[in-house]
Amino acid sequence: MMSDIEVARSVTMKPISEVASRLGIPDEALNNYGKHIAKVDNAYLATLADKPKGKLVLVTAITPTPAGEGKTTTTVGLGDALNRIGKRAAICLREPSLGPCFGVKGGAAGGGWAQVVPMEAINLHFTGDFHAITSAHNLLAAMIDNHIYWGNDLGIDTRRVAWRRAIDMNDRSLRQITSSLGGVSNGFAREDGFDITVASEVMAVFCLAKDYTDLEARLAKIVVAETRDRKPVTAGDIGAAPAMTVLLKDALAPNLVQTLEGNPAFVHGGPFANIAHGCNSVSATQAALRLADVVVTEAGFGADLGAEKFFDIKCRKAGLEPDAAVIVATIRALKMHGGIGKADLSKENVAAVEEGFANLARHIENVAKFGVPSVVCINKFVTDTDAEIETVIRLCKEQAGVDAVLCTHWADGSKGTEELARKVEAILDAPRATPFTTLYPDDMPLLKKVETIAKELYRASAVSADAKVRKQLADYEAAGFGHVPVCIAKTQSSFSADPNAKNAPTGHVLPIREVRLSAGAEFVIVICGDIMTMPGLPKVPSALHIRLDANGEIEGLS
Amino acid sequence: MMSDIEVARSVTMKPISEVASRLGIPDEALNNYGKHIAKVDNAYLATLADKPKGKLVLVTAITPTPAGEGKTTTTVGLGDALNRIGKRAAICLREPSLGPCFGVKGGAAGGGWAQVVPMEAINLHFTGDFHAITSAHNLLAAMIDNHIYWGNDLGIDTRRVAWRRAIDMNDRSLRQITSSLGGVSNGFAREDGFDITVASEVMAVFCLAKDYTDLEARLAKIVVAETRDRKPVTAGDIGAAPAMTVLLKDALAPNLVQTLEGNPAFVHGGPFANIAHGCNSVSATQAALRLADVVVTEAGFGADLGAEKFFDIKCRKAGLEPDAAVIVATIRALKMHGGIGKADLSKENVAAVEEGFANLARHIENVAKFGVPSVVCINKFVTDTDAEIETVIRLCKEQAGVDAVLCTHWADGSKGTEELARKVEAILDAPRATPFTTLYPDDMPLLKKVETIAKELYRASAVSADAKVRKQLADYEAAGFGHVPVCIAKTQSSFSADPNAKNAPTGHVLPIREVRLSAGAEFVIVICGDIMTMPGLPKVPSALHIRLDANGEIEGLS
Repeated sequence: MMSDIEVARSVTMKPISEVASRLGIPDEALNNYGKHIAKVDNAYLATLADKPKGKLVLVTAITPTPAGEGKTTTTVGLGDALNRIGKRAAICLREPSLGPCFGVKGGAAGGGWAQVVPMEAINLHFTGDFHAITSAHNLLAAMIDNHIYWGNDLGIDTRRVAWRRAIDMNDRSLRQITSSLGGVSNGFAREDGFDITVASEVMAVFCLAKDYTDLEARLAKIVVAETRDRKPVTAGDIGAAPAMTVLLKDALAPNLVQTLEGNPAFVHGGPFANIAHGCNSVSATQAALRLADVVVTEAGFGADLGAEKFFDIKCRKAGLEPDAAVIVATIRALKMHGGIGKADLSKENVAAVEEGFANLARHIENVAKFGVPSVVCINKFVTDTDAEIETVIRLCKEQAGVDAVLCTHWADGSKGTEELARKVEAILDAPRATPFTTLYPDDMPLLKKVETIAKELYRASAVSADAKVRKQLADYEAAGFGHVPVCIAKTQSSFSADPNAKNAPTGHVLPIREVRLSAGAEFVIVICGDIMTMPGLPKVPSALHIRLDANGEIEGLS
Repeated sequence: MMSDIEVARSVTMKPISEVASRLGIPDEALNNYGKHIAKVDNAYLATLADKPKGKLVLVTAITPTPAGEGKTTTTVGLGDALNRIGKRAAICLREPSLGPCFGVKGGAAGGGWAQVVPMEAINLHFTGDFHAITSAHNLLAAMIDNHIYWGNDLGIDTRRVAWRRAIDMNDRSLRQITSSLGGVSNGFAREDGFDITVASEVMAVFCLAKDYTDLEARLAKIVVAETRDRKPVTAGDIGAAPAMTVLLKDALAPNLVQTLEGNPAFVHGGPFANIAHGCNSVSATQAALRLADVVVTEAGFGADLGAEKFFDIKCRKAGLEPDAAVIVATIRALKMHGGIGKADLSKENVAAVEEGFANLARHIENVAKFGVPSVVCINKFVTDTDAEIETVIRLCKEQAGVDAVLCTHWADGSKGTEELARKVEAILDAPRATPFTTLYPDDMPLLKKVETIAKELYRASAVSADAKVRKQLADYEAAGFGHVPVCIAKTQSSFSADPNAKNAPTGHVLPIREVRLSAGAEFVIVICGDIMTMPGLPKVPSALHIRLDANGEIEGLS
């Protein structure tokens, strides 16, 4: 069996201008990065603002398990299949983070015969967007400490600098540091630390910005510290936002690549799906909607986190109205939710599938609460049995009222998702039964927004928050931030805040540990449980296997 | 008067393929980064290995003063003028570092009518080479701490980890930190710090590597730490070199841009000129020599540091034989060496010029010791008087036996360096009087190499080194590193180690404070005085003036 990188390399890529021309993008609007990657010029994209938008399809998933689901491969496979049946379709994905490529996760450009290419470039430096975001983040950090060093006119309390530093690397040693050591000429010693770049608020801002003006205005609003009397200090106060915008200038143009079948794929931006909203950039999605008839995109983690934030944050803020959702499930993952351990997943177990179906059913129900019609993709694995697959299809129809389709895009490319594409086409062509709606209105109090998500989607009985958290939320409301959405950071492994509570737990309490304002991204982060913003490397990191072979080709990336 | 960025923008750039075709580079060998930047494929360049080499001209300078000299503008101006008089000439420059652009220095793409363009891109992220180097550096750092975390099989002494971290930002707060704080899951707390990327040994290795095999072998040799019993631990022991090479794969291909006059310019690599050798990459220079009849390149700081390292490190290691040198001087800088303060530089002062000429004369003498014929460029400033200029021309002829030419490329482009180009042409066409020679042979003991440079070039009476330094040098020799060149890190502002000793001091003692082995770059760094490897930002950093204007164009870069 060929590895992902071998499959990717076995296909001859089209010149990127040919891929672009399928969307009607002229050569003058492309800034090439090599022969198979281009940025699409923002000035050209601005001229398309009045064009009618295509249809928007979200790919989301059941609650993730170690067995894997395959959202990215399904997004690629569905996009290819829509093209296969004659639609002008484009996909929109997040950019992979460099750090995890050298850790345990590997790359994030799909897999098998459902990949975006050139996968090596996409997984490594790509067009440098994440490096630009890292630089902008760290310029702000350097300017804050520099302001303190040269007299601290703003009166920043060095104990209350909230703006950490960023690096696109898995490096646990940098989670918590003491900086500015070594005497007078190095500044005022203080506690500090690094987050991985995807966790930076600059990343979230970048992915939500409509244009340069909006980008700079959002960056200026980022709260970086407090004064001794607890007044917020912003990036605007520091004077950093214009130079940060300059560092992000080229990066803000969407990246165009292709799938293995030569269809257009925008891969742009990639915020964390816990402490941020977990979707590709608004600029890429808006571009794709003007250029294609159907746009297929994905959101991070399961639908409780990813789809909810896609709907309640990204669509709300960008004025997007999703037309359909695909919920990806695997037989193996359903069996895990049904109580089976990893070692026994290869044995047929219809009862476990029936048990674990509760997880899928709840995600289907939840997506319907946003008024978005859905279809289930059963992403086939080689050990799945007919009885197991038929069980899921039957239960979806009987208990959840949706279609489920077996897909084999990993092995077969678009042939394996053609039936799924037909189902999606039917949804898009049918008159819409229910309008898209966010789960809560802007003017609901912040804590009530959290309670709404917790009860409606997570099926929690209550939300717990101590007095400090409640006061902080009240303070945000008093400061004029009551109208923003909430961005819940909890484990992706459960509907609840307990990663061990698989399947479809009910009656649990969602404990709010801490809240943070992302004033630039315009949401309040609600932290429920341990959230890691800087991963470490495993004992045997992938880095030990990544090398150039004798022909100068990269091996070991997956 | 137009700013550098306004001049740069007033010129219509050629498509980069047209610039490349002037050197005979086919389109297939180009990987474009936008319309005006390309990387030239290393596989294509390898096919040129047997082509005859063009002539190599080094641009160096007198001892720098705050009055400025203009090496980069002269390199650009001379390259343009050589093209103007019918030569197929290319220039080779270092890539600017991102950090200083936001500090006090501004960019480094030339100035006035002698610039390389697109200057905004070159000064900011360019093709991402420095980001790739930063990533490779920090992957190694993360893998070292990860090795310690997971059991430390190599027995690394955490007090003796020599490999710091890197960031391309002026950030004094990161000079000295304590890392891995916060408990068991974050590793073993230890002292650490960040250097700016140009000071990374990865940068030096990158700039000296002949090809991927050489790059990986050099990276593997980098000494990163010692064990408790003082045995060296290398990047190879950590297993990081292959993945670091993968991160540097695209970066190693030379970047091609153009001058304002549309002539080819390679801008690639940029190591510090104190703790490293301060020249652009060997890969770019070798490429240019196969593609052009004349290659003009520059070295950092004054000739005592930059030219010496260019000859003794880069040319020695890469088998290059420079054919001529241009020594850049300004009337204002000579007056500063002659004892005049910055406030009085605009007043005519022939006596001060005569006094300060001693600095220029010594650099001319020093360059001749390498067997390289030279010519002096007087880089004109508006306040220079005819009498001052004639004094320098006369003294050069009478006392140093070389021609000096007044150049006005900043204001006039290649018209202003045409006479210089004719003088350089005459040198290149004349039979060579003396062969190129390095200052010392490989097999000279390390301390003797330092003494040779100190006495022959700096005119020191002696070198001082305590027992610890002498033992360290002896240990390097015992470990098989006696044959490598020495890379002296001292102030650029004086021939001596005292930055206040202007002009042409003699009889001083060069104090070796510390020595370090760059086993990957293959030199021993000899530190004489305070060497800053992480700059800070000034009170009013350039970052406060860099912004997008209403048309989305960058302003404030210079």
